[in-house]
Amino acid sequence: MDQLQRCVAEFIGTLLLVFVGAGSAVAALVDGGVVVVAFTFGLTLLVLVYAIGPISGCHVNPAVTLGALIAGRISLVGAAAYWIAQFGGAAVAGLGLWILTRHGGVDDQTDSLATNGYGVDINLGGTFLLEIVLTFLLVLVVLVVTSRAEHAGFAGIAIGFALTATNLIAINLDGASINPARSLGPAIFEGGVALSQLWVFIIAPLIGGVLAAMVAPLLASTHQSYRRHAERAG
Amino acid sequence: MDQLQRCVAEFIGTLLLVFVGAGSAVAALVDGGVVVVAFTFGLTLLVLVYAIGPISGCHVNPAVTLGALIAGRISLVGAAAYWIAQFGGAAVAGLGLWILTRHGGVDDQTDSLATNGYGVDINLGGTFLLEIVLTFLLVLVVLVVTSRAEHAGFAGIAIGFALTATNLIAINLDGASINPARSLGPAIFEGGVALSQLWVFIIAPLIGGVLAAMVAPLLASTHQSYRRHAERAG
Amino acid sequence: MDQLQRCVAEFIGTLLLVFVGAGSAVAALVDGGVVVVAFTFGLTLLVLVYAIGPISGCHVNPAVTLGALIAGRISLVGAAAYWIAQFGGAAVAGLGLWILTRHGGVDDQTDSLATNGYGVDINLGGTFLLEIVLTFLLVLVVLVVTSRAEHAGFAGIAIGFALTATNLIAINLDGASINPARSLGPAIFEGGVALSQLWVFIIAPLIGGVLAAMVAPLLASTHQSYRRHAERAG
Amino acid sequence: MDQLQRCVAEFIGTLLLVFVGAGSAVAALVDGGVVVVAFTFGLTLLVLVYAIGPISGCHVNPAVTLGALIAGRISLVGAAAYWIAQFGGAAVAGLGLWILTRHGGVDDQTDSLATNGYGVDINLGGTFLLEIVLTFLLVLVVLVVTSRAEHAGFAGIAIGFALTATNLIAINLDGASINPARSLGPAIFEGGVALSQLWVFIIAPLIGGVLAAMVAPLLASTHQSYRRHAERAG
Repeated sequence: MDQLQRCVAEFIGTLLLVFVGAGSAVAALVDGGVVVVAFTFGLTLLVLVYAIGPISGCHVNPAVTLGALIAGRISLVGAAAYWIAQFGGAAVAGLGLWILTRHGGVDDQTDSLATNGYGVDINLGGTFLLEIVLTFLLVLVVLVVTSRAEHAGFAGIAIGFALTATNLIAINLDGASINPARSLGPAIFEGGVALSQLWVFIIAPLIGGVLAAMVAPLLASTHQSYRRHAERAG
Repeated sequence: MDQLQRCVAEFIGTLLLVFVGAGSAVAALVDGGVVVVAFTFGLTLLVLVYAIGPISGCHVNPAVTLGALIAGRISLVGAAAYWIAQFGGAAVAGLGLWILTRHGGVDDQTDSLATNGYGVDINLGGTFLLEIVLTFLLVLVVLVVTSRAEHAGFAGIAIGFALTATNLIAINLDGASINPARSLGPAIFEGGVALSQLWVFIIAPLIGGVLAAMVAPLLASTHQSYRRHAERAG
Repeated sequence: MDQLQRCVAEFIGTLLLVFVGAGSAVAALVDGGVVVVAFTFGLTLLVLVYAIGPISGCHVNPAVTLGALIAGRISLVGAAAYWIAQFGGAAVAGLGLWILTRHGGVDDQTDSLATNGYGVDINLGGTFLLEIVLTFLLVLVVLVVTSRAEHAGFAGIAIGFALTATNLIAINLDGASINPARSLGPAIFEGGVALSQLWVFIIAPLIGGVLAAMVAPLLASTHQSYRRHAERAG
Repeated sequence: MDQLQRCVAEFIGTLLLVFVGAGSAVAALVDGGVVVVAFTFGLTLLVLVYAIGPISGCHVNPAVTLGALIAGRISLVGAAAYWIAQFGGAAVAGLGLWILTRHGGVDDQTDSLATNGYGVDINLGGTFLLEIVLTFLLVLVVLVVTSRAEHAGFAGIAIGFALTATNLIAINLDGASINPARSLGPAIFEGGVALSQLWVFIIAPLIGGVLAAMVAPLLASTHQSYRRHAERAG
């Protein structure tokens, strides 16, 4: 029952994140530029952390769930259920954007349903470097910040703005994945090159998530070391 | 007496939200684009949640009040009083913008007093889809976040930034209602097409609010389930 | 001694607010538009509330100090000392901008040292309406939010973003005063029209501050009424 | 052991700050302007304060570490280790940007690997004035905000947004250093003029840090004076 509630939260959360975030690129990338898309993704994630974080942890991103799995915070069965919910929510979001642009009278400012891609503004190697480093940052922040009791309320701000910051650099280069579900949703409705390149935007973020799960323990503050630092700073 | 104080808060809050938010479109839509308008609406709402939230709950939006009514948080009489205060405040804000542009020497960069509309950048069906999903997100966040004791102080940040994110996608398409009062205020002074299309921007957000009130209980964290999640994440 | 420390805080705070805020207009108004200036002013104020708020209350704005005086939170002597510190800090900031543009090799993108003015994009009556409403919003937020114990830490976010939101509408129209000290600092070094119109940007914000001090008690939550609302919402 | 963990945190933090921040200029300065770069730097720092602040204090900036040394919060040996970690992390970030632009197919929108420089939009004297004042603001905020127990959780928001605000004025003029490590990382891979001007962007921020450490005690709130102010405001 609780497991079902968590999956419902991940489904709705990923659906809203991808519909609103990728939709902002469809609606305003040419007029508004990367600031619009980066803040829409980041602020929607920030909001979702406060709305569904207490239910499911608000992963809404298969790379975060993989990091949580390696860190031992979720079971393999639980992670698989999350992945299904996340990809399912993203697919429904892609359908929504497809309806808006094909039947809703909306002109697509990305000409590609806000899918991710490489080959024009960045090559394949650059994309791997970029997506690995940026997803490493996002998942590291999620794992470290949510592992501490102090300042727990600020997790949503830290996580949401981590997505905004990483999007601000990546949107102009590969459209900013950092989240395999965000890449899959629009790609399965756009097809073509976007679909043939989709594997990169699934694998690279997952590698970043794995690396973050390996580094996170180095940055875990034992209660003891934190107090010692606080005393020094006091 | 308390009821009167709450209605005064809703009146002043909606007045300021619509005057500043819609006013930023009048003053800077061409120069500054959707970022200006989305942040003005969202940050003004964020600020109002901290200023009048403890008084009235800071609905300042008839769709939020409808969601709260269905969720059993406000009585029908109380909701009706809120609606009157909200539409009244929005009307005064529309008057203020009318004065600024007709007698204050301000050139209207929207050419329509920042009213909402469809038919150019999105069609009627697309508008219903967009406004329902976006208002669903906003009202869901309001209902879920304000129903929990933990991290209660962050409600203003979550609610305000939910409005910014939803505006970032919608402004370029239909001008972003997500709030029937925000649409009514300028429309009654602009008249014409804006007034004839007003019904869409009243009904669609209200449907989104109803759906949010129906889904919110699925995401309500009982204290028990939250603790269990925290233990897992700990 | 405490009084001196408070005035030092107001002097440094106003100096930094005006130098960084007005400086961002000098450096980037043409390239970056109103978003740059509105966020520079608002985020600098947000930061200052956390830095000097515990010392002086972080007014850094004569209209806020006037509101606090009427609300009985500061003595007349204390307010006069604050005003001297605020105008003094703003004047030093104006000098800094004058040095940057006259001797530092910086091209002034405002062509007027970021002073406020009316007559081109808004007339005199419109300026009074705009500055009164916007300063009313800012001072109301300051007085109401800092009068409550609950969520006291969020005051900086609410106050800073109130300045951003109000700037987003006003910068394109009159350059956004909302703070007589912010207007005076650059004007005394720019002279000419800016200096002859300065009285408007001193008087209109002060009127907004007086109105806010009159309305604030209507929105003050007695502990009792707040609890009752919380119960209703619970 | 704790010392090593702190240096690892400073190394990773500075690496991510410079790679993402300077990378956003490389990727989007022409399209997105100063807003993109200022928010990328500021939000990344905000995020890092929540992620590694409890470990190392999240200096990620030699000028902050110098201020902390003068304020007696860190030993000389500890500061030296931090500086090595910070410059090392920034150098690896510079290498990452060099790889992206030389081998990753990324076109450098700054034409100079996002290095800092003077002589075009600001002269040497202006640069010293600007960098000293802005770094003074940043380091003052760090020292004052982290010295208080009240509202400790908001330190990340105050520190991150202080960097955004200072970047919003400086990026158009000298590219915004405010952090010697941020300047060094890209400069050693770009060479040429950027490397020959590097000394300015090391010395000026350090002077700002020293001044902040001297002024910070004036703004330190003793618990007593704070309570007195709270009573006045109550």
